[in-house]
Amino acid sequence: MSEQIYIGVDLGGTAIKVGICNEEGQLLHTYEGPTEVEKGADAVVNNIERYVRLILEQSPYDWDQLAGVGAGVAGFTNVRDGIIILAPNIGLKDVHIRSILEQRLGKPVRIDNDANVAALGEAWAGAGKGVGNCVCYTLGTGVGGGIIINGAIYQGFSGMAGELGHMAVVPDLEAIQCGCGKIGCLETVSSATGVIRMAKDAVERGDRTSLAQVENIMAKDVFDAAKAGDEAAIRIVSRAAFYLGKSLAQVSAVLNPQRFIIGGGVSKAGDILFNEVRSVYAKLTPEPLQEGVDIVPAILGNDAGMIGAAGLFLH
Amino acid sequence: MSEQIYIGVDLGGTAIKVGICNEEGQLLHTYEGPTEVEKGADAVVNNIERYVRLILEQSPYDWDQLAGVGAGVAGFTNVRDGIIILAPNIGLKDVHIRSILEQRLGKPVRIDNDANVAALGEAWAGAGKGVGNCVCYTLGTGVGGGIIINGAIYQGFSGMAGELGHMAVVPDLEAIQCGCGKIGCLETVSSATGVIRMAKDAVERGDRTSLAQVENIMAKDVFDAAKAGDEAAIRIVSRAAFYLGKSLAQVSAVLNPQRFIIGGGVSKAGDILFNEVRSVYAKLTPEPLQEGVDIVPAILGNDAGMIGAAGLFLH
Repeated sequence: MSEQIYIGVDLGGTAIKVGICNEEGQLLHTYEGPTEVEKGADAVVNNIERYVRLILEQSPYDWDQLAGVGAGVAGFTNVRDGIIILAPNIGLKDVHIRSILEQRLGKPVRIDNDANVAALGEAWAGAGKGVGNCVCYTLGTGVGGGIIINGAIYQGFSGMAGELGHMAVVPDLEAIQCGCGKIGCLETVSSATGVIRMAKDAVERGDRTSLAQVENIMAKDVFDAAKAGDEAAIRIVSRAAFYLGKSLAQVSAVLNPQRFIIGGGVSKAGDILFNEVRSVYAKLTPEPLQEGVDIVPAILGNDAGMIGAAGLFLH
Repeated sequence: MSEQIYIGVDLGGTAIKVGICNEEGQLLHTYEGPTEVEKGADAVVNNIERYVRLILEQSPYDWDQLAGVGAGVAGFTNVRDGIIILAPNIGLKDVHIRSILEQRLGKPVRIDNDANVAALGEAWAGAGKGVGNCVCYTLGTGVGGGIIINGAIYQGFSGMAGELGHMAVVPDLEAIQCGCGKIGCLETVSSATGVIRMAKDAVERGDRTSLAQVENIMAKDVFDAAKAGDEAAIRIVSRAAFYLGKSLAQVSAVLNPQRFIIGGGVSKAGDILFNEVRSVYAKLTPEPLQEGVDIVPAILGNDAGMIGAAGLFLH
């Protein structure tokens, strides 16, 4: 029999990315089309089906080789029943996506949220390859997380394990409210949004910083300024790194994973971030828990979602 | 064939407690003898063997019914290879306890550390009965922890998962050094040792408190004073509860367990502790993660170790 393939779908608010993977997690072929949120839920679901069919037609693979379609969704999902509970940026609510797609495609479908599938992608075929127990952070607009135990996504009691962005690591005295309604969440400081907020605060209160000259501050501006020696920017990156490192230390004491994988836009800050994260982690984690554990950058970038979604069938 | 039984051994620095359990986790018969640490490692191992044989002789069960012997050890263990790496209070170091006991008893033997087996006991036959995913805290001299996933102890990468006492939850400004060498660990505030230290500090610095009249302050004295309305004592219990609740919130975001079980001497403080823990947890944990999750006291007391050790064979 010819090689089996899997299609991974990365369903976002702007684009739907579909990728063909083999059983080793190699991305063989990709396609990207608009989500067309503005046309409504039916159009979005139609687009998923259309792009899945399109990519196979464009590829050298046959429909018969397709063993399953996995999807990572930017929103809340019910993994067991294959339902998108709420995906505000995609305009989907209570959509039984698995049964709809299984009926239309005649193939098995699995779904999970985007942070989980990105974690699975990295753990399976990226920075965590060969390591069974990883914890992944995605530092983007928010902070997403995924817990990989024995090579599979760990869901927890109600499917909410790995909500690492909502670890309450910032002490009350310097905490602000998070989008989730609680205070002190990691994502208020270690996300791109958090970094930008801290930069704008610094400019507004008149700190001496080169960021005052930047029109519309982005996270990258802050990293560039920090690398150039701007003290306010260095403080901001240090603070993002400090609470991230603190969160890693807590996760270590709870789960004792072998590897931490850190991806997303903020991770592009590079050494200036990673050095501080490693140093805080080392300071707060008992020695025996540190042994053999490493903290590494993600390597798959935006492909992690497609690969991990395809990987839902193999883990 | 007649009912199978399991013997659980709780190996502590003062006493060795052995208990006969059935497959439902019911404790049918117990025996307790001195550890005799002062006589050396061989004597301790001999005592384990002796007490296991003794309890069976005293019981209505036959040697043939014994399906396995599990042991919980107050120290560092290598679960996979059945080795006690270091148990300072029992005077054991690098003891291949599993192979030694298997040879002498002719029965399968399993070991784990005391916090893990106590957690398993509570999860299996105590406050976590019927709940697959629990996290247990034991607030004793230190703070022990155990992570139960799908009814079994979760070990992590190097067998150190569930070191909840070493979560760095106390911010630097008010943190002190822990026995593990790091600062800000949960057990510096939420253990009996932590409560006693805070009480002595309060007395030494001249706080107006009834504890100043107590000769040799124990944790229970602090709880009693708090219940009687002593403000300094109330502050101390609140602080122990605050960081415990904060730690629960972090664990929720990481693992999304269904139930938290809190045992050990400090948990005897009762409502004054639990109310505050629940309130801090509610304040710091996103609503969806709180749904269906509860925080309950352990119910097995000192029997949890024997029961959980026996349970190593059934999970």
